[in-house]
Amino acid sequence: MDWGTDLWDQFDIIEKHTQWGLDLVEKYVKFVKERTEIEQNYAKQLRSLVKKFNPKRGTKEDQDCKYTHYQSFLDILNEMNDYAGQREVIAENMMMNICIELTKYSQDIKHERKSHLLDGRKSQQLLESSYKLLDNSKRRFEREWREAEKAGLNAERIDQDINATKADVEKAKQHANLRAHVAEECKNDYAAQLQKYNKDQNQFYFIDMPQIFNKMQDMDERRIKKLADGYRTFADIERRVIPIIGKCLDGINKAADVINEKNDTLTLIELNKSGFERPMDQEFEDYSQGINRTASDS
Amino acid sequence: MDWGTDLWDQFDIIEKHTQWGLDLVEKYVKFVKERTEIEQNYAKQLRSLVKKFNPKRGTKEDQDCKYTHYQSFLDILNEMNDYAGQREVIAENMMMNICIELTKYSQDIKHERKSHLLDGRKSQQLLESSYKLLDNSKRRFEREWREAEKAGLNAERIDQDINATKADVEKAKQHANLRAHVAEECKNDYAAQLQKYNKDQNQFYFIDMPQIFNKMQDMDERRIKKLADGYRTFADIERRVIPIIGKCLDGINKAADVINEKNDTLTLIELNKSGFERPMDQEFEDYSQGINRTASDS
Repeated sequence: MDWGTDLWDQFDIIEKHTQWGLDLVEKYVKFVKERTEIEQNYAKQLRSLVKKFNPKRGTKEDQDCKYTHYQSFLDILNEMNDYAGQREVIAENMMMNICIELTKYSQDIKHERKSHLLDGRKSQQLLESSYKLLDNSKRRFEREWREAEKAGLNAERIDQDINATKADVEKAKQHANLRAHVAEECKNDYAAQLQKYNKDQNQFYFIDMPQIFNKMQDMDERRIKKLADGYRTFADIERRVIPIIGKCLDGINKAADVINEKNDTLTLIELNKSGFERPMDQEFEDYSQGINRTASDS
Repeated sequence: MDWGTDLWDQFDIIEKHTQWGLDLVEKYVKFVKERTEIEQNYAKQLRSLVKKFNPKRGTKEDQDCKYTHYQSFLDILNEMNDYAGQREVIAENMMMNICIELTKYSQDIKHERKSHLLDGRKSQQLLESSYKLLDNSKRRFEREWREAEKAGLNAERIDQDINATKADVEKAKQHANLRAHVAEECKNDYAAQLQKYNKDQNQFYFIDMPQIFNKMQDMDERRIKKLADGYRTFADIERRVIPIIGKCLDGINKAADVINEKNDTLTLIELNKSGFERPMDQEFEDYSQGINRTASDS
């Protein structure tokens, strides 16, 4: 089974279906393009989230970095930034390897299709003109045959007319023979045209159009294969990024594991201890030495 | 090294640092909350992308599904929908297991911190009132001592005054003795207050405040551990989703592999072949049988 044999009378269907196929490729490209826009937007939002929570350079927060659990937060922000970068990689690769690639390919298919359709139309026109020639020569043969028949009847009528001269009879017979001769030539011409037309029709239905249709079938199969590649690439691009995203997640886990809560509370001591000793007991201030003296005198 | 021993004179620093710690938890919760909003938004965009490219039910596209490369596109849309669902799972789990969890925990820490700070203020107030009592008794002792000294000097002066009566001398001496006795009682009171104050001061600096500060250090360590758990969960929630996302990608690959371009072009035949045979040769229509007859007659 092939289009050339089984769809020999479905030129319109083939034309429509191959257009539908190209539209589907275009639709898929549009789908992927909108996906890349979503990815870019997602990455942009993640990046501004990171920026929003990252401390301004040279602020008080520089000192805060001495606390592992604060430094780890900054590390996580960094990993999120890398993460966003990977979403951008997805978007860029989808744009390059699917959208641009498929658009270029479908341009080629579009041109190829157009040229096949043109070849088909040309073949159709050739067959039509061949048919027109056949029709003309057939009509001429029919017309000339009527003329010849009329001339023959006329010659017979004159031949049997007792008032006709021999010269009249001879003239009429000559005229009838001439017409019969012309009709015979038209008949031969019609027979030749018919033979040519049947050859052309055979060429059209059994060779030219089947070839064109089969080329279009082949073209459609190539388009479908390319589109299938585009589907596969859609998954593969993201799959390639998963290990890197996994590394970002590892980085976040590492940042969490590095946190040492004992260390962090000791850091507060290092940064803030005065080194002073705690106050000693207050001493007794004896204002009464004078009194005691006086009192003991009494 | 601990806060009770080494930061004994840094109540303000400890108060400020533990507040900073709670602010950091709040900041992290806010960061994660904004991340969940980004994920929800991302998922929503993916879902509307899928919806936009999914055919309306009952349209001509139902027939298009007979083409594997079109059906696979629909399968990919389905996988993308599942993919979006996984981003929503990430958002929901982050909200539940980080934002709500940490907010609840930091409320507890906030209350605990407030109660420690209150205990510290109470201890400070107790020591201050103890000091006030000490100061008062010390001043009273000083004042009474001056009075007693003055009374003693006055008694001496009267004793040596040749114009003074014996009764005057006796009265002045009795007054001086009374004053000396009062001063002696104030001295004892001061000594007792001093002993009590030194005991209170000791209690404050070596027992009460160290205990409070160490409890706050312990509290801060628990806060940091919980925050580190929150960091870890941030990565783990996403990591748990990776295999499911991997399955979505597998689904897309499968959809691409299922495509059979030969089949799809045969499907066009099945759906559209007319079953008619290609036209046969046109037959010769011989108008000239009459002529031939006439011509051969001649």
